[in-house]
Amino acid sequence: MKSFKIPEATIMRLSVYSRYLNRLLKQGLTTISSSEIAQNTGATSAQVRKDLAYFGEFGTRGVGYDVGSLYDSIAGILGLNKDWDVVIVGAGKLGLALSMYEGFRERGFRNRAIFDVDPIKVGKKVQGVKILHSDTIIEVCSELKPDIGIIAVPGEEAQKIADQLIAAGVRSILNFAPRVVSVPYDVQIRNVDLSVHLEILTYNMAMGDKG
Amino acid sequence: MKSFKIPEATIMRLSVYSRYLNRLLKQGLTTISSSEIAQNTGATSAQVRKDLAYFGEFGTRGVGYDVGSLYDSIAGILGLNKDWDVVIVGAGKLGLALSMYEGFRERGFRNRAIFDVDPIKVGKKVQGVKILHSDTIIEVCSELKPDIGIIAVPGEEAQKIADQLIAAGVRSILNFAPRVVSVPYDVQIRNVDLSVHLEILTYNMAMGDKG
Repeated sequence: MKSFKIPEATIMRLSVYSRYLNRLLKQGLTTISSSEIAQNTGATSAQVRKDLAYFGEFGTRGVGYDVGSLYDSIAGILGLNKDWDVVIVGAGKLGLALSMYEGFRERGFRNRAIFDVDPIKVGKKVQGVKILHSDTIIEVCSELKPDIGIIAVPGEEAQKIADQLIAAGVRSILNFAPRVVSVPYDVQIRNVDLSVHLEILTYNMAMGDKG
Repeated sequence: MKSFKIPEATIMRLSVYSRYLNRLLKQGLTTISSSEIAQNTGATSAQVRKDLAYFGEFGTRGVGYDVGSLYDSIAGILGLNKDWDVVIVGAGKLGLALSMYEGFRERGFRNRAIFDVDPIKVGKKVQGVKILHSDTIIEVCSELKPDIGIIAVPGEEAQKIADQLIAAGVRSILNFAPRVVSVPYDVQIRNVDLSVHLEILTYNMAMGDKG
């Protein structure tokens, strides 16, 4: 695998392409062109070709791509040729939405545990997954060894939860709390604030640029 | 305002900076350095300075930035010096999570209506906002004229809902359904699939790169 840095925008688009290819596979389609992929994923044909070129030669000039093998290749690049164990901290509306998000399961993300501090929620199940008390995060995660911890708690709790996940050995964290969380250098974190997307829209509206 | 294209990553970071500055304002802080902003928002000092430089001269060398005026400037750039009316389509877990997302309200996004097809949900209220039947999207939105429509319905419904919002005059759409939606050139859309963020983590794990 090439060792130079692939742009993050490319990885995000690969993720979108692969979901589209998966849909085509289910529909029984076998070949597809870069312009068709582009049209159905909000990219341009040039982007599709350039994104794929980072990882090698796919497709045949004048024929297009084989849907199945392109899907397998992209899934491999994204690490989706295996299942990943996930825990979700926070069983509020967002945590529950994430627990039930069909997109996660389809992509091989297995929800192993949900944590919350609310005694009314603790002990209940969400699609077969038990809600445990947040006091047990370190203990349970040391045992389960999840690949990814998802944080969906109020902003002021986020750093404490991240620290507990890290203490339990979790090395990849997705933080949906509206507060940036700091982690040691050997832990990867993505801070996803949902307001950011709305504010790109308002920025464009304020600029009078609807492009 | 400068007319060249500002990188989207800059706009996303400005959104994060401004939320941090807002927190400082509430704490009564008056000056801040670019390195402090960087440290608390997951950016580098150089990024902070470069992002701000797109929009003019802020701060004083050796002194730093005035928290209040920097916050006001960024809020103005992001179009947050006014309130924006939003409607949310889909009152499933994700739609409800978005309806109650504290981050939206804090930033001046006013939820004006929620739509769903489920007769059990229609007529109920979420934080004072009534859930209306999705059959009324065109009628209600033609009247309310929301600035932004948020889509949180199953993938196969997303395009239909987008078409209805557009027919009612909505010109900015945030789509959380796991399906890319196409819109005419004069409508701006952001397709936000929550799996994408997980897959950037798995890509990095698969590459053995925890950076």
